[in-house]
Amino acid sequence: MGILAINFKAYETAFTDTAVKIAEAASKAVTLYNNVRVILAVPSPLVYRLSSIHEDLYLQHVDPVEYGSRTGYIPARALEHLPVKGTLLNHSEHKVTIRHIDYAIKTIREIGKEILVCADTPQEAAALTHLKPNMIAVEPPELIGTGIPVSRAKPEVITKAVNAVHRIDSDIPVLAGAGISGPEDAVKALELGAEGVLVASVVMKSKTPERSLIELAEALSQ
Amino acid sequence: MGILAINFKAYETAFTDTAVKIAEAASKAVTLYNNVRVILAVPSPLVYRLSSIHEDLYLQHVDPVEYGSRTGYIPARALEHLPVKGTLLNHSEHKVTIRHIDYAIKTIREIGKEILVCADTPQEAAALTHLKPNMIAVEPPELIGTGIPVSRAKPEVITKAVNAVHRIDSDIPVLAGAGISGPEDAVKALELGAEGVLVASVVMKSKTPERSLIELAEALSQ
Amino acid sequence: MGILAINFKAYETAFTDTAVKIAEAASKAVTLYNNVRVILAVPSPLVYRLSSIHEDLYLQHVDPVEYGSRTGYIPARALEHLPVKGTLLNHSEHKVTIRHIDYAIKTIREIGKEILVCADTPQEAAALTHLKPNMIAVEPPELIGTGIPVSRAKPEVITKAVNAVHRIDSDIPVLAGAGISGPEDAVKALELGAEGVLVASVVMKSKTPERSLIELAEALSQ
Amino acid sequence: MGILAINFKAYETAFTDTAVKIAEAASKAVTLYNNVRVILAVPSPLVYRLSSIHEDLYLQHVDPVEYGSRTGYIPARALEHLPVKGTLLNHSEHKVTIRHIDYAIKTIREIGKEILVCADTPQEAAALTHLKPNMIAVEPPELIGTGIPVSRAKPEVITKAVNAVHRIDSDIPVLAGAGISGPEDAVKALELGAEGVLVASVVMKSKTPERSLIELAEALSQ
Repeated sequence: MGILAINFKAYETAFTDTAVKIAEAASKAVTLYNNVRVILAVPSPLVYRLSSIHEDLYLQHVDPVEYGSRTGYIPARALEHLPVKGTLLNHSEHKVTIRHIDYAIKTIREIGKEILVCADTPQEAAALTHLKPNMIAVEPPELIGTGIPVSRAKPEVITKAVNAVHRIDSDIPVLAGAGISGPEDAVKALELGAEGVLVASVVMKSKTPERSLIELAEALSQ
Repeated sequence: MGILAINFKAYETAFTDTAVKIAEAASKAVTLYNNVRVILAVPSPLVYRLSSIHEDLYLQHVDPVEYGSRTGYIPARALEHLPVKGTLLNHSEHKVTIRHIDYAIKTIREIGKEILVCADTPQEAAALTHLKPNMIAVEPPELIGTGIPVSRAKPEVITKAVNAVHRIDSDIPVLAGAGISGPEDAVKALELGAEGVLVASVVMKSKTPERSLIELAEALSQ
Repeated sequence: MGILAINFKAYETAFTDTAVKIAEAASKAVTLYNNVRVILAVPSPLVYRLSSIHEDLYLQHVDPVEYGSRTGYIPARALEHLPVKGTLLNHSEHKVTIRHIDYAIKTIREIGKEILVCADTPQEAAALTHLKPNMIAVEPPELIGTGIPVSRAKPEVITKAVNAVHRIDSDIPVLAGAGISGPEDAVKALELGAEGVLVASVVMKSKTPERSLIELAEALSQ
Repeated sequence: MGILAINFKAYETAFTDTAVKIAEAASKAVTLYNNVRVILAVPSPLVYRLSSIHEDLYLQHVDPVEYGSRTGYIPARALEHLPVKGTLLNHSEHKVTIRHIDYAIKTIREIGKEILVCADTPQEAAALTHLKPNMIAVEPPELIGTGIPVSRAKPEVITKAVNAVHRIDSDIPVLAGAGISGPEDAVKALELGAEGVLVASVVMKSKTPERSLIELAEALSQ
């Protein structure tokens, strides 16, 4: 099973009707390719708008706080009441402390949801493995948003991350991200040992986001 | 017109069916008392769940970023696409820089939405007035969540804040918050010159949150 | 009396023997021009190296914490034991909350030291005036480090800031900063109502930092 | 060789003549017990005051920035010009991101100085090992400052951390910290596999800080 995780980020399209169309395409993709999983990491205000369209949603971030007198934070534990499967954390654009990650992983596992943590490097991926997340995505920050795919420009980052993670825990899937620009880059990532890809601009900034999504899903189904 | 702003914070009730019931009560209150405004500052993931029930929603926080490659942040400008009237900012539990506040106020005014900024003290309220928010709430942090109402324990905080703000800009309404425990505290706040109250636990931790809300709205309608 | 405040920032020269030479030049300048004050805002590790050379030192930042079990922070109150006259706070490159500024101003006034807070705009300068710092410096962030002097490119920023601050409290001196490139810019700032300048690169990145400092001091003495 | 690392934190004594006396005691201790190393992690403003008394100083924190236009930060690279042997980082009271730690370790190793990173748990210690710091200290945050020594209350934290770290890299020494209250706790930590201890209040809040330091050093020399 190949995993296609799409980070909506804070592109304007993440907040408009385009977000709805992408969710519809995601829903269609998992019908067409039943060995592909399509995770949409959406802006927090969109979850109830999109959850009836595609059920495999993630938040992009959660906070290391418990329920209570806190304003403008999303407690990790609140995922238990939200129509999402899990959350991203420690994305290159939103780095947090190990303590924050450790708290979030423990809390989210406790409530039976998922957490995908991001790493800049194979070393960071190895480090994060000790905290037992559900998945790890490795993304060299210098390639994010460039359109230069990690799977071609720095394939060794993927193989090293996969090896480093699996040496510690062979059950944790590794996704590859940064610069993924099309189906071939996704296929290449699988060949290098990744179990899927984490993408953003290739869908969110595409002139035909639905088609871009379907093509990636198809590539990951093979 | 009295203003009742209810900060849902991150209480568990803010994420459950209780949130829906509070939104229903808010909707009922503005029908019953047409000179009262009821603003619900809800957790970001709830906006699309609650917007069809009560239309006067706020976010609890926005970030000082533009649309783009940013993960886990809510651009202030994104309010243009969300079913909310505005946002809180600079709450005692989520303090930000003047630069952040200034950016958010300019952006949110530009797109025709509202922003209510919070102040610890009359001095902070005066300072914030220069940035031209739509409303200012003054809340002594030492009273937040205590059940000791600012309007009784520190009435001078309200009168000083109202005077300090209106000396600079007489068009900016001042709300009073911290420890508001019932209708009499709200009435007292109006008597001291506030145009409404910012509350949280009196509704969110009430055994009968709908009744607590209706009682506060009734008090503010007189 | 004209004030020349030199922010050493984190330039490499701020940590080397150049720092010593600049301190010597500062000491010489106040002997030559007895109506000029030269404040050096130095990196915290340098204070005991430079305090025997020039006595008018500032820190660049302090933290809003009391003495105690805290690692890697400088309590505002600790200035009472350090050989410095005061501190900068809220510099464009290190923005903090109003609560942080308010705490630091109260603490530092209590122990008889000084605090110079920075503002991006006349509005922020007005806002900060309510907190009663010893001095306010206004620096448009878009000009910092450009060599385009605020006193020529945006003179209205200085006049507006001076007016806005003095309308609230006529006793607080306003310094002008950003892009100050030489003696004429400093003179121009005084003409616009500032009582001095806050500079950095014109001294720290000068090929002849001592001469640059002396020239600025001379200009401010007239 | 046993290592005694003393974190001065931000206790008032860290800024007064007591700091000088502790530095003198440290200097005496390494003369008395030549198989003991005494590291003093001092507040940044104190380095030039104490470096002539005891040469084995650390900062308590460094920032992940290069030299340049930055105010109130200490670039990791600036250690090359300061009279310190190295720095602490990621202390329980000052947690930072993996990216920050990775940057600091690479920079500090490049300039030939040392870095001691702190971990809350054996898992965090294992994670940090992948980044190749010079030393790792494990400190359960719930015991810090309590006087309940980790080596007695939670000995398994020490043994697990030592094993987890050495499984990945047997060359990285592990220190034990939190609640160390006297010489016996230090001895016990060595017996559990640590190569030293990281302490704070046992010296900084002692009525006889010099004696407390000497006793710990003596215990670690055996």
